[in-house]
Amino acid sequence: MSGPQVVRVTKLVLDVLKPHQPSILEMSKLLGELEGVKAVNTVLREVDADTETVVLSIDGPELDYEELLNAIEQCSASVHSMDEVSVESVDSGEEY
Amino acid sequence: MSGPQVVRVTKLVLDVLKPHQPSILEMSKLLGELEGVKAVNTVLREVDADTETVVLSIDGPELDYEELLNAIEQCSASVHSMDEVSVESVDSGEEY
Amino acid sequence: MSGPQVVRVTKLVLDVLKPHQPSILEMSKLLGELEGVKAVNTVLREVDADTETVVLSIDGPELDYEELLNAIEQCSASVHSMDEVSVESVDSGEEY
Amino acid sequence: MSGPQVVRVTKLVLDVLKPHQPSILEMSKLLGELEGVKAVNTVLREVDADTETVVLSIDGPELDYEELLNAIEQCSASVHSMDEVSVESVDSGEEY
Amino acid sequence: MSGPQVVRVTKLVLDVLKPHQPSILEMSKLLGELEGVKAVNTVLREVDADTETVVLSIDGPELDYEELLNAIEQCSASVHSMDEVSVESVDSGEEY
Amino acid sequence: MSGPQVVRVTKLVLDVLKPHQPSILEMSKLLGELEGVKAVNTVLREVDADTETVVLSIDGPELDYEELLNAIEQCSASVHSMDEVSVESVDSGEEY
Amino acid sequence: MSGPQVVRVTKLVLDVLKPHQPSILEMSKLLGELEGVKAVNTVLREVDADTETVVLSIDGPELDYEELLNAIEQCSASVHSMDEVSVESVDSGEEY
Repeated sequence: MSGPQVVRVTKLVLDVLKPHQPSILEMSKLLGELEGVKAVNTVLREVDADTETVVLSIDGPELDYEELLNAIEQCSASVHSMDEVSVESVDSGEEY
Repeated sequence: MSGPQVVRVTKLVLDVLKPHQPSILEMSKLLGELEGVKAVNTVLREVDADTETVVLSIDGPELDYEELLNAIEQCSASVHSMDEVSVESVDSGEEY
Repeated sequence: MSGPQVVRVTKLVLDVLKPHQPSILEMSKLLGELEGVKAVNTVLREVDADTETVVLSIDGPELDYEELLNAIEQCSASVHSMDEVSVESVDSGEEY
Repeated sequence: MSGPQVVRVTKLVLDVLKPHQPSILEMSKLLGELEGVKAVNTVLREVDADTETVVLSIDGPELDYEELLNAIEQCSASVHSMDEVSVESVDSGEEY
Repeated sequence: MSGPQVVRVTKLVLDVLKPHQPSILEMSKLLGELEGVKAVNTVLREVDADTETVVLSIDGPELDYEELLNAIEQCSASVHSMDEVSVESVDSGEEY
Repeated sequence: MSGPQVVRVTKLVLDVLKPHQPSILEMSKLLGELEGVKAVNTVLREVDADTETVVLSIDGPELDYEELLNAIEQCSASVHSMDEVSVESVDSGEEY
Repeated sequence: MSGPQVVRVTKLVLDVLKPHQPSILEMSKLLGELEGVKAVNTVLREVDADTETVVLSIDGPELDYEELLNAIEQCSASVHSMDEVSVESVDSGEEY
């Protein structure tokens, strides 16, 4: 347990405001295509006239938040808050 | 972990408004016949004079939403909202 | 994953109104005798002067609703609502 | 999956009204001595001046309700309601 | 599954009123020393000026209630109610 | 199952009133150093001006309450109540 | 079970007040880089105009609180309270 540790983001829970289109199906697929993403679960929380609030739970071996944010913004959606983050550390010697 | 990833829809939870006929038994069977569907669970939520609200949870290795929607509409039912979506990503090299 | 899929009903939850006789013990046994049924769990929900409401949860590899309905009606009981259905799909080639 | 099925009662939950004597310890032991019974769990629910209400959960490979009822009545107790029944079915060929 | 069955008491939950001394630590140890007892868990429920109410959960392969009662009374405590009993049955041939 | 049984205290849950210093980190470490202790979990319950109430859950193969009490008092803290005790019994022949 | 025991802090739950920047993503990564940390989970609890309250759950084989505190303060954040601590003890001979 010496040497610098590599830290990977393995989970992000994002509260997102989006227009009704694209659907949560299309947005989930788009995010699932990004490298380092293994699974996306999207749950509808609230529906308003023009928008809806959804909670995105994104898991993967190494999430890249900037790429995720770009994809979300491509859907005309915005991250309202980041509600949960998990990171894991591995010694740089035991990379996988 | 390079090369494009294939994204599969593995779970859909749909809030559906339907007439009393066909029954949830018949609708569940119809959906279960579609390719890429492994299991359908249908729960009755509310009963009104002419209609009922049901929640469909559909799981499978690769769901095709357009086909599911067609089958639901064949039952004179309509998707009121899509409440949950799960997708999974695999490298295109490790297809199964 | 090609060719038509066979769909089997594997779970039914039924809300049933019945007279006090036959007892839930006798009704459960009668249903358990039907082919394709593996287990029946019956829970008493409400007791009135002449009737009682029970919830039947029936599991098995391949339930036949028509046969179940016949047996329930033999007990002078009626299905008030079908509260849950589960189906599973198998390729017709991988029959068991 | 052909031929008649044998149905066994594997669980009974009984709501029982009993005098304070014999104790739930003595009643549980008496029921546990019956053939086909594997376990008895008895929980005290309510205590009144002369009586108490208990819930008996009886599990076993093959419960015989008539024998159980006889034993309960030997304790001067009566079954107020049968709250749950589970049965399991086996093909008569795969007896154990 | 023939021949008489041996019934063993494997669990007792007792509601006990005791003085503050001996402590629940001392009482638990005393009960744990009895033959046929494997584990004792004692939870404090209520504290009054001179007394406290505790719930004793006693597990073991073969509990002897008379011995347990003697030990409880040695602590100047009394069993207020017996809240749960579990028994298990074994054929006298498969003794362990 | 003959011969005297050895009884070990394996769990203690203590409600403790302590000054803000030493911190729950320091107190947990101090208790963890005692022989027969395997794990200490300390949860903050209430904070007042000069004191705080914490719940200590201490697990180990053989806890010695007198030693634990000494260590707690070294932290200027006092045991407000003993909320749970678990003991386990082993035949003196099967010592580990 | 003789000789002095080594005590390791394996879990810390900290209630932390922080400015909106750096984000919980950046703070979690920074903490994950510290030696002896295996995982960090950060959950947003409350958002105010200039600050937010988050709960940090930090797990690892051997946490060093001083280092964690330094890193938290580098983010202009402060520990409002330490809500949970877990320690584990090992004999100094069975080091890993």
